[in-house]
Amino acid sequence: MVNKDRIQLAHGGGGQLTAELIERVILPAIGSDAAGGQAGGLTDSAVLSLEAGEIAFTTDSFVVQPLEFPGSDIGKLAVCGTVNDLAVAGAIPRVISLALVIAEGFEIAMLKRILTSLGETARAAGVAVVTGDTKVVGSEACDGLIINTAGIGSMHPAAKLGFERIDPDDEIVLSGPLGEHGMAVMSQREGLNFSAELKSDCAAIHELTIGLIEAMGPQIKFMRDPTRGGLAATLVEIATSTGRDMEIAEAAIPVNRTARATAEMLGLDLLTAANEGKLVAVVGSGCGQKAVEILAAFDIARGAAVIGCVGQQVENALVELVTSVGGRRVLQMPYGEQLPRIC
Amino acid sequence: MVNKDRIQLAHGGGGQLTAELIERVILPAIGSDAAGGQAGGLTDSAVLSLEAGEIAFTTDSFVVQPLEFPGSDIGKLAVCGTVNDLAVAGAIPRVISLALVIAEGFEIAMLKRILTSLGETARAAGVAVVTGDTKVVGSEACDGLIINTAGIGSMHPAAKLGFERIDPDDEIVLSGPLGEHGMAVMSQREGLNFSAELKSDCAAIHELTIGLIEAMGPQIKFMRDPTRGGLAATLVEIATSTGRDMEIAEAAIPVNRTARATAEMLGLDLLTAANEGKLVAVVGSGCGQKAVEILAAFDIARGAAVIGCVGQQVENALVELVTSVGGRRVLQMPYGEQLPRIC
Repeated sequence: MVNKDRIQLAHGGGGQLTAELIERVILPAIGSDAAGGQAGGLTDSAVLSLEAGEIAFTTDSFVVQPLEFPGSDIGKLAVCGTVNDLAVAGAIPRVISLALVIAEGFEIAMLKRILTSLGETARAAGVAVVTGDTKVVGSEACDGLIINTAGIGSMHPAAKLGFERIDPDDEIVLSGPLGEHGMAVMSQREGLNFSAELKSDCAAIHELTIGLIEAMGPQIKFMRDPTRGGLAATLVEIATSTGRDMEIAEAAIPVNRTARATAEMLGLDLLTAANEGKLVAVVGSGCGQKAVEILAAFDIARGAAVIGCVGQQVENALVELVTSVGGRRVLQMPYGEQLPRIC
Repeated sequence: MVNKDRIQLAHGGGGQLTAELIERVILPAIGSDAAGGQAGGLTDSAVLSLEAGEIAFTTDSFVVQPLEFPGSDIGKLAVCGTVNDLAVAGAIPRVISLALVIAEGFEIAMLKRILTSLGETARAAGVAVVTGDTKVVGSEACDGLIINTAGIGSMHPAAKLGFERIDPDDEIVLSGPLGEHGMAVMSQREGLNFSAELKSDCAAIHELTIGLIEAMGPQIKFMRDPTRGGLAATLVEIATSTGRDMEIAEAAIPVNRTARATAEMLGLDLLTAANEGKLVAVVGSGCGQKAVEILAAFDIARGAAVIGCVGQQVENALVELVTSVGGRRVLQMPYGEQLPRIC
């Protein structure tokens, strides 16, 4: 007998059951206003009129395990990850696509919860889910649910971003404490009870990026959200791409105490842990404090701080961390995974 | 010891190994001209200038098994599927994204073959791969490789497509024989030797759609590529969405003999089998033959034919198949899957 509470292979066949899954489960859960206001369902192709000008285009697949974790879930993550990639490129996020790969036997109630969360996050971020795709694979062929979102944004006319715009003495701003996403997922996986108060920082950061661009224009020179590889990977990428040294003050880096305790217990480094609602911005010399004030007006960036500055162009540019006790160490690009399947 | 010929979990960590995988394996295989001409790799977000006007946006995940099959592979399929969704919307395909979910232990040589095929197909279709994402999951969490592509196209200014444009006596044109993709994948899975000559029809059909639009403008009223659910699902969708009956002449439907023999042996119906390089177009009354002539100038549409016509608006619109012996049967939307994991 067919279990009506779970996904069947036939839901992916492109026939009547696929149409029913989309119309009765997926679209109502996302919410019609998030789903591009479309009555007939997510079309194979959406036709859009964007204002004239440049657009940004991005994609991300999400494979996090577990699918639901403290403070967030894969649905919210799938919107925030793509919105944030557009945001740090200097774009105003407009629309996203939604491609689901679902394992046979997946619980439909959980699918509804995840898609409801996804729809709420999209609505809050002002992006419409305009086109989609649904595939079903055997239960042995996929670990529950994989979501891909691609996104299109309109480039903000005042955004002037790029590695080439970074100069000596530019300041590096971080929007809040590190590693909350990575440690929340990890503590859920490992069943660490003392971490119960730890929640993923998963959030859409486009209001932060647009706020900075509109207030400070060309003084905002580069932005990035430090996800996989964490702050370390982001800073090393900037140093490598610009050929400029950087100096970071360890004491200035905002840290969540529970995240730090979790990281220490698991033998992990918060500087390489994944974040999903944080922003790293390189701003003009002398502009760091103003950027911090703009950011701190937003709930998700209350802990913003200037954490370091850009140095001279040299042959092998390095990121140096000045430790709290006055020592120095070189930050490295992490080699492989610290935490697999974190996003 | 680490096996250098296979994907490791650490390749997905966002650190040095991820960068090496992208720079040494993924980008060279795709080819730099297909990969948006980018030296530094596929960026998180690509910034694009498209000419003013409407755009089409689409997404598809590809989960086909096996990953390589007669006439094609998942890489070629991932480009064609997305290019074709844009094409039938009346758009000129411009750029695609590429998101890979790879299982730990996946053979790097096979990844290179698949991405080489993907790059060649993208180049041939004139679309650049401009942004990407790479995730690695445990070998138990994914069946080898899942590819998602999203695509953006510029709407052709002469395209006037939509269900609402379909009138009585409009003619239905099919670009060639049915079911070659579905039967090629299935014969590979089942090891049917007599089907050795059967190849997937996987192809980009944008030249067909643009050719029709440029030659016939508003006489081209609706287009669709009959993938999952096959010709039957496409025709039933048109009948349901327009509220108009349709009559299809079975004898007029082009069929590949080997595909038919394979379908008969497996007890499957070619009318519901998946195609990946075929086009269904609804054209104005009296315009079918001209559309066939335009299509037949392309190698992939030599077998084009007018297969039926649109009837009156009625309460429960049906697709009637007039069989070769003069009987009539009603075509149904397939219920669930006939062949799972076909695309």
